[in-house]
Amino acid sequence: MFHVVPLGTGSALPTKTRHLAGTVVRREGRSVLFDCGEGSQLQLVRGDLTRGRLDAVCITHLHGDHFFGLPGLLTTLALLEREDPLTIVGPPGLASILGAIPGFGDGGPYEIRYVELEEGFEHAVVYEDEHVTIEARPLEHRVFCAGFRYQEKERPGSIDGEGARASGVTEGWQYEALKRGEAVDLEGGGTLAPDGLVGPPKPGAAFAYVLDTVPCDGGRALADRADLLMHEATFTDEHAERAADVGHSTARQAAEVARDAHAGRLLITHFSARYTDAAPLVAEAREVFENADAAEELERYEVRR
Amino acid sequence: MFHVVPLGTGSALPTKTRHLAGTVVRREGRSVLFDCGEGSQLQLVRGDLTRGRLDAVCITHLHGDHFFGLPGLLTTLALLEREDPLTIVGPPGLASILGAIPGFGDGGPYEIRYVELEEGFEHAVVYEDEHVTIEARPLEHRVFCAGFRYQEKERPGSIDGEGARASGVTEGWQYEALKRGEAVDLEGGGTLAPDGLVGPPKPGAAFAYVLDTVPCDGGRALADRADLLMHEATFTDEHAERAADVGHSTARQAAEVARDAHAGRLLITHFSARYTDAAPLVAEAREVFENADAAEELERYEVRR
Repeated sequence: MFHVVPLGTGSALPTKTRHLAGTVVRREGRSVLFDCGEGSQLQLVRGDLTRGRLDAVCITHLHGDHFFGLPGLLTTLALLEREDPLTIVGPPGLASILGAIPGFGDGGPYEIRYVELEEGFEHAVVYEDEHVTIEARPLEHRVFCAGFRYQEKERPGSIDGEGARASGVTEGWQYEALKRGEAVDLEGGGTLAPDGLVGPPKPGAAFAYVLDTVPCDGGRALADRADLLMHEATFTDEHAERAADVGHSTARQAAEVARDAHAGRLLITHFSARYTDAAPLVAEAREVFENADAAEELERYEVRR
Repeated sequence: MFHVVPLGTGSALPTKTRHLAGTVVRREGRSVLFDCGEGSQLQLVRGDLTRGRLDAVCITHLHGDHFFGLPGLLTTLALLEREDPLTIVGPPGLASILGAIPGFGDGGPYEIRYVELEEGFEHAVVYEDEHVTIEARPLEHRVFCAGFRYQEKERPGSIDGEGARASGVTEGWQYEALKRGEAVDLEGGGTLAPDGLVGPPKPGAAFAYVLDTVPCDGGRALADRADLLMHEATFTDEHAERAADVGHSTARQAAEVARDAHAGRLLITHFSARYTDAAPLVAEAREVFENADAAEELERYEVRR
């Protein structure tokens, strides 16, 4: 289980009510940021979202509304005397742009591990730790663009505690070993196999982050059976032609991706400044995929399998 | 007469209640921006300060909290299809940093006129139009830093309308010519000189922007008889040693500059995140210079001679 918190739901131009693209995923005191538009670090402060460790920042593409907040965030981490390395995932060229920031040229105050995606890539695992994997796939926008899937790893199945006790298990380490699928030696002699005592592994929850793009195969693959899909919906379907021209999706198209990928829930975001109210976009999406909402800034969305 | 509107009054680290450095001066529908920390364009939108023309942006120094909002602002102006040239004043190196922004490398969508100050400069007029002059002087910070003075030009004196009419003046152009100090031909024959009919020229109002710096001669010269001085006051005097170490001023020192320069009014700003309440800083400043206040974000301060 983890939480997804949108920091900004606008597109290109900031408005009085919407900030620029940025979404933080928080899981057991650790965070990953997807996109980092100008003001993202201010939204993190405003939403009490700064505690715990930031492991990675994943940037979809090099339009300013998706990454101009990075220099400020990186500088703030330095001022806070961060020592842990930080993974930054993004398009080709991102490292050299950030290298122009005073103080980050050649070896900043903490290690930045750049993972630059390559032109023409089809699939990449861009981050992995003991609990989580993040993969990237190409999207279709006016410039190089990648979407991401944040996937919790499978966890061991539940153990039948009463059955184990009845078989002679007394110690915590024995339970843990059984959960890992290992046989354990018993105090009274003999060995106990996990068969029948441990349920099937529990699949992790998944979150797909798909912007900016027209509806595309990469987005559908990332969204495949995701528990939560965040998909851009810059326009209503009335402006479908304009959306295609500028490499964006309509709310109906976002909902079609959610439906085709069998996603659990859809949050639409990245609304054009012309929509002061997201209701028409949500209504349009729900005609295709019922469990759809407009992402709300600083709302905490729980994601579980 | 013009207005000064602080956009952010914090320093280095954004907090829940304070944004990063940025102050806009607005005069008859035209604006100049002093510093442009991350989020400045968002504050402009929030404060209904985007209408009219932005003539110039003056950056004091290359610490992120003073200029990381520039890429976003410049991109937004491009999206809004700006055509007027924009003057950007700043330290050496600013143009090459901004040149790394995608789309601004070699000739962006509108002309940017860079005015880069030189190491070791003592005084420079960095911007001038028919109504206003901006001059820069060096400040004393950890890195190259400049302060600015926004000075309205002298306007013609008032005309003694009754006296002019009694002398045979009937047309508007005659009044204007007299105000400019020229003699005019009268309809009934003869010539009327302006002597005695036109008062002395009216001096313009002045605003001095002095951050980040220890108290210094450059700051005092910029503040000389300014109607409004905005001076940084990162710390209270209790932390005077630390202030000196990191190239900042205390509230008492800011007030001493205001007093020594015979400024009309003092606004202190750039408060360390440790001060959630600016009251102790204001109290300290007022012990030295009574007409002192803490700059309030999005408050409009009228400045007149």
